[in-house]
Amino acid sequence: MRKKLKLGILGGGGNSLIGVLHRVAAYMYEHYEIVGGAFHSKYESSLEFAKNNGLPTDRIYKNIDDLIAKEMALPETERMDVVSVVTPNFLHFDMVKKLLDNNFHVICEKPLTTTYQEAKILKKAIEGKHLVFAVTHTYTGYPMVREMRKLVESGRLGTIQKVDVQYYQGWINPIIHDVEKRKTTWHLDPEKSGKSSCLADIGVHAFNMIEFTTGLKVDKVLSDLNYLYDDNPMDIDGTVLLRFSKNVKGVLRSSQVATGEENGLSIKIYGDKAGMKWEQEDPNFLYLMEEDKPLQVLKPGHAYNSELSLNSVKLPPGHPEGIFDAMGNIYLGVAKAIKGEPYDSGEFPTLTDGVRGMNFIESAMESHSNGNIWVAIDNE
Amino acid sequence: MRKKLKLGILGGGGNSLIGVLHRVAAYMYEHYEIVGGAFHSKYESSLEFAKNNGLPTDRIYKNIDDLIAKEMALPETERMDVVSVVTPNFLHFDMVKKLLDNNFHVICEKPLTTTYQEAKILKKAIEGKHLVFAVTHTYTGYPMVREMRKLVESGRLGTIQKVDVQYYQGWINPIIHDVEKRKTTWHLDPEKSGKSSCLADIGVHAFNMIEFTTGLKVDKVLSDLNYLYDDNPMDIDGTVLLRFSKNVKGVLRSSQVATGEENGLSIKIYGDKAGMKWEQEDPNFLYLMEEDKPLQVLKPGHAYNSELSLNSVKLPPGHPEGIFDAMGNIYLGVAKAIKGEPYDSGEFPTLTDGVRGMNFIESAMESHSNGNIWVAIDNE
Amino acid sequence: MRKKLKLGILGGGGNSLIGVLHRVAAYMYEHYEIVGGAFHSKYESSLEFAKNNGLPTDRIYKNIDDLIAKEMALPETERMDVVSVVTPNFLHFDMVKKLLDNNFHVICEKPLTTTYQEAKILKKAIEGKHLVFAVTHTYTGYPMVREMRKLVESGRLGTIQKVDVQYYQGWINPIIHDVEKRKTTWHLDPEKSGKSSCLADIGVHAFNMIEFTTGLKVDKVLSDLNYLYDDNPMDIDGTVLLRFSKNVKGVLRSSQVATGEENGLSIKIYGDKAGMKWEQEDPNFLYLMEEDKPLQVLKPGHAYNSELSLNSVKLPPGHPEGIFDAMGNIYLGVAKAIKGEPYDSGEFPTLTDGVRGMNFIESAMESHSNGNIWVAIDNE
Amino acid sequence: MRKKLKLGILGGGGNSLIGVLHRVAAYMYEHYEIVGGAFHSKYESSLEFAKNNGLPTDRIYKNIDDLIAKEMALPETERMDVVSVVTPNFLHFDMVKKLLDNNFHVICEKPLTTTYQEAKILKKAIEGKHLVFAVTHTYTGYPMVREMRKLVESGRLGTIQKVDVQYYQGWINPIIHDVEKRKTTWHLDPEKSGKSSCLADIGVHAFNMIEFTTGLKVDKVLSDLNYLYDDNPMDIDGTVLLRFSKNVKGVLRSSQVATGEENGLSIKIYGDKAGMKWEQEDPNFLYLMEEDKPLQVLKPGHAYNSELSLNSVKLPPGHPEGIFDAMGNIYLGVAKAIKGEPYDSGEFPTLTDGVRGMNFIESAMESHSNGNIWVAIDNE
Repeated sequence: MRKKLKLGILGGGGNSLIGVLHRVAAYMYEHYEIVGGAFHSKYESSLEFAKNNGLPTDRIYKNIDDLIAKEMALPETERMDVVSVVTPNFLHFDMVKKLLDNNFHVICEKPLTTTYQEAKILKKAIEGKHLVFAVTHTYTGYPMVREMRKLVESGRLGTIQKVDVQYYQGWINPIIHDVEKRKTTWHLDPEKSGKSSCLADIGVHAFNMIEFTTGLKVDKVLSDLNYLYDDNPMDIDGTVLLRFSKNVKGVLRSSQVATGEENGLSIKIYGDKAGMKWEQEDPNFLYLMEEDKPLQVLKPGHAYNSELSLNSVKLPPGHPEGIFDAMGNIYLGVAKAIKGEPYDSGEFPTLTDGVRGMNFIESAMESHSNGNIWVAIDNE
Repeated sequence: MRKKLKLGILGGGGNSLIGVLHRVAAYMYEHYEIVGGAFHSKYESSLEFAKNNGLPTDRIYKNIDDLIAKEMALPETERMDVVSVVTPNFLHFDMVKKLLDNNFHVICEKPLTTTYQEAKILKKAIEGKHLVFAVTHTYTGYPMVREMRKLVESGRLGTIQKVDVQYYQGWINPIIHDVEKRKTTWHLDPEKSGKSSCLADIGVHAFNMIEFTTGLKVDKVLSDLNYLYDDNPMDIDGTVLLRFSKNVKGVLRSSQVATGEENGLSIKIYGDKAGMKWEQEDPNFLYLMEEDKPLQVLKPGHAYNSELSLNSVKLPPGHPEGIFDAMGNIYLGVAKAIKGEPYDSGEFPTLTDGVRGMNFIESAMESHSNGNIWVAIDNE
Repeated sequence: MRKKLKLGILGGGGNSLIGVLHRVAAYMYEHYEIVGGAFHSKYESSLEFAKNNGLPTDRIYKNIDDLIAKEMALPETERMDVVSVVTPNFLHFDMVKKLLDNNFHVICEKPLTTTYQEAKILKKAIEGKHLVFAVTHTYTGYPMVREMRKLVESGRLGTIQKVDVQYYQGWINPIIHDVEKRKTTWHLDPEKSGKSSCLADIGVHAFNMIEFTTGLKVDKVLSDLNYLYDDNPMDIDGTVLLRFSKNVKGVLRSSQVATGEENGLSIKIYGDKAGMKWEQEDPNFLYLMEEDKPLQVLKPGHAYNSELSLNSVKLPPGHPEGIFDAMGNIYLGVAKAIKGEPYDSGEFPTLTDGVRGMNFIESAMESHSNGNIWVAIDNE
Repeated sequence: MRKKLKLGILGGGGNSLIGVLHRVAAYMYEHYEIVGGAFHSKYESSLEFAKNNGLPTDRIYKNIDDLIAKEMALPETERMDVVSVVTPNFLHFDMVKKLLDNNFHVICEKPLTTTYQEAKILKKAIEGKHLVFAVTHTYTGYPMVREMRKLVESGRLGTIQKVDVQYYQGWINPIIHDVEKRKTTWHLDPEKSGKSSCLADIGVHAFNMIEFTTGLKVDKVLSDLNYLYDDNPMDIDGTVLLRFSKNVKGVLRSSQVATGEENGLSIKIYGDKAGMKWEQEDPNFLYLMEEDKPLQVLKPGHAYNSELSLNSVKLPPGHPEGIFDAMGNIYLGVAKAIKGEPYDSGEFPTLTDGVRGMNFIESAMESHSNGNIWVAIDNE
């Protein structure tokens, strides 16, 4: 008999889209029940939000400290099993640190923290504890992204020799060219959003996509960022040269001023046996290019896919699933891990992935500000 | 404050995929709570299914009669508001009839019944009652399908002069050519599946897609079906010529032996001002062809879309939503209608659509068996 | 040492686009030299056209009779080897008949004639003669169309069970709805264009595409044409149900009022082993769908293609060739045939294909005007 | 009356594909007649080649000196007007220098020379002469590439802020990993192919594509090349960061080991008003992304295109033209220029473009070998 996991949520109230994404993902496989949380910084708003969305109202908390105090007072069987952190980035660190210290499993939005230093503290905090920690690089939940990981693992592409990832959006374009808008948007205010815009918001997804699909670790980066205006303090575009182990190279291209682009994350991976391509905006098509064969287009749900990929779809081929389903797959993996059921390492990115992401952001920023030099990523 | 609707479900247990689709759809916008039902023909299996999926176990019923008896005994505030019928087709009629007679709102899978006669009885049964009735032509829940309807309504295409719809699948191919398999599959057994396979299973979706998007009513049909083998009693392929009002013509092409096709529903609509195209397997791209202009590709979530379409997405452009989201949109519309909130007629197909679908199936079969003659669709 | 074939051309002067297509095709593989002809109905215009396009001016003729008289007076080594007929349709019959009677090889545009009766006379006229006769169904010259033919021949698709071909254009839309325009355009004047517009202009290409790629012969047809206005005497849209041998069925859809469509010829072929799809507007991609395998996209120039297909490209994969190259391939095949070199039957459609095309047009028109009944295609 | 230009060709004999491309291009618009040249380094092979391809045999020369001596001895009206140089790269400089010194118009394949130094000498050699000089960056002949140039010129994209160009091929992959093959192929032998493989062969096309379409000049480059093996002396992959004027940045990605890629040249250009995308392997589709509008797909031959683009197609929309047609368009432009007719600067790349290409190659190589530093491109 299935006992649903008790899920608390921090953030995601009001018109938050990320909140919707997490709640639907939690419902999708019927493994979670949302029992409460703090959806807003104000208690009254949280309560109202719960009421208006048919969520339970008896475990709405003022803040992380209130949550921890009261939840810890509950018998273990009643207590939240896991807490999702979907607040603004600068709040992650404090919340996550306290959740870990009190032995809650955690699902946390990216970027993990606002500094690499904080990320490393969290990594230390979880050491020795048997806690499940997922960083929601949502795109890793797509069945064909998971298939890419398995195809590389299986050796189908041979030795990887080149990786090219892109994450192009255009939404900052109408803001950046308007001096009033660019000075007032919180997105470009380092106080509110941290030191980086493009790298921290989307570049980090692209970075994770590379390491998730190829299993490779980036060794060092050389970046050229673009701020477009001298009075704009935050990167809104950046190309990053990548070096992996000897003679394996790549490039990461990210932009928030690629005018007209919506959410253009895509990846191309080339091995010595085959290449492959995938695009987030059309996520159910994976292009495999094996030497001397016709281009192959792999789609979800077919028996030729890996078990991991097959377990990431609910309906037969030809019934497109999307980004909510991708996030649902990540929540499913977390549920299995918490319940001690077997799961594949590809089912959710971990705290380590989150830490590497922060390392990437800071190294890429350092490269740019020091004149486009090579800066290492830690590989312990 | 939002009170969730109490939802009962008939069918959808075991490994039923359609059951998953309906449950996720119900959860998606947080308007429903599943309170019980009869997921299986056997009570014990229903109960076990509820337990294994974290569903409530206290309102599991033996059958439709049991459900109605016990639910009617509950105070109105506790009683199921709406019941989803996702059982095999031949059970729809009896269940729906009893639900309507006892004033439950109903969500019913297609095809509505197994005969046009039954469908007309249901239509009679609902007359004068203020009940919400949705037939789940899921594909009408896609934002760009809804946009097609609104583009036609707005006059953007001018007067429609030609419609071409396709629904090609290939899954019966490996069955039909194996004499043992084709004799034993329940899909091709009229006792279990009704008189039609291709028309009733997918042709009816294609028919609905035409009327949903164009607002036109089909006047008459001329069909040529294919059974491939003399010992196969059910149509597995069929092309249907369509006539609407004077000089407006169309064609509906459906097949279950279009080898290699997955779920290839697509539609092309041509007016005297513009044409448009859409494909279910890539549902977030709508192609609009206006005279003397570049081809336009409309995507969900942009401000240029109609309100109906915009209200059918949860995330900004570039975040692909899929078929679960489409069904979620239908459930959302039903919730609004039940709660007496304003809603658009494009938010869910109704009993009338279900009745017309049955009329189409029977007329098309009659056309074929009488030598490919024109047979009328009733247009009262 | 290569001796170029002496080519004469009838028609194609002024701003004729088809004339450009044929001349470029003739130059492409360096097998022909254009020596003269009659590009216009007026001698002076022909001469001026030759001068303005750098064509030889010493063998410009007044008309077909003049051409034949003077060419027959030349020594055989100087005489035109082959004549291309690219005049308006109603002139084909007389010209071709005289060319055949005087033993010229012929390349003729489609439709072959204006009636099936005329076509049969031409077929009689060529009997017993060793003449090469090509009807320029240009699209058969594309490498991937040829690959379709070879894939079917090779058995890769198994037994064909369903064929669906489309030829949608929209260019008549702005004409048909303007009463003045539709009454004055020569396209819709039976005196100038023959009895059929849509079927004769494009339907016949679609018909040929089916028989060329599948090797099947259509047995009978049932059509529903559309004229849109009562005062319009010519079909501008038509759907044709097709029957081949027992239980093999298909549909041919053609339109000139598919608003916004450009030149939308496409074909889908389904066998019991695999299906495939191809679109003229993107001619270098052939989609092969084998059961239980990823979708395969075949492209020109790869070693996995047939010899016929490989011999139809001049550059390596990734260098797109187009419709001029397709016509060039047909001219190449004709050159081989005239020179007595080995060639594949897929290198050009023959007079027999042209005759069948006329048979199709008339049978489909008869079906419609007799109330959408089945009408046979002759299969001697 | 049209007098055809007398064209001589250097190189392109045997199985040369580039030779076919140039000859067909010369025939296409009926502006050239090929009168002779030196197709091979050996006179006998040249003569045999001419005979076997139906080319004239009376003006076949031993080498460039022989050609110049004998052509200069002819009366001016008989002399070659223009000479196409399609020999191996290392021969370009000497031939072109002599042709210019003797006042022949020249069409030369890319890369212009083997060193920037040589290129500058050629630039000096042409100074003050009224000679037409085209470098065949073939891809600039596509109608939609020309449309990109005109869209930027027209201000439709606003101020360009980001450019991303890719040229990925995979053909060296099977060679590079085989130690014998990589040591013996002439492609990777600096003696035979010059110092660079990837940059000189395809990177230079990508560089030209940027400057051709945007009208921008690259200021400086920072590159990271890849040789994959220590014993391989030539770059087979390289990413180049680009800086234009202040705060305009870009990236050029090229590879010959992008396994499975065919001829993947593509470009993305983002301005402050709109973005656009184009791919060489599907050259008739140009994607224009204007803020708040549906994605627009522009195709050749429509009235909405610029005059330059419209003049680059021979048939109406929907009749795909390809790479031979693109080269034909370049030859057409050169013919106009030689004849003194008006032409658009977008009709062919010039010697200056060729010189800049050489500058780019050397600067990018210098950047890499000096540790990935910024190196300037000359902008006089």
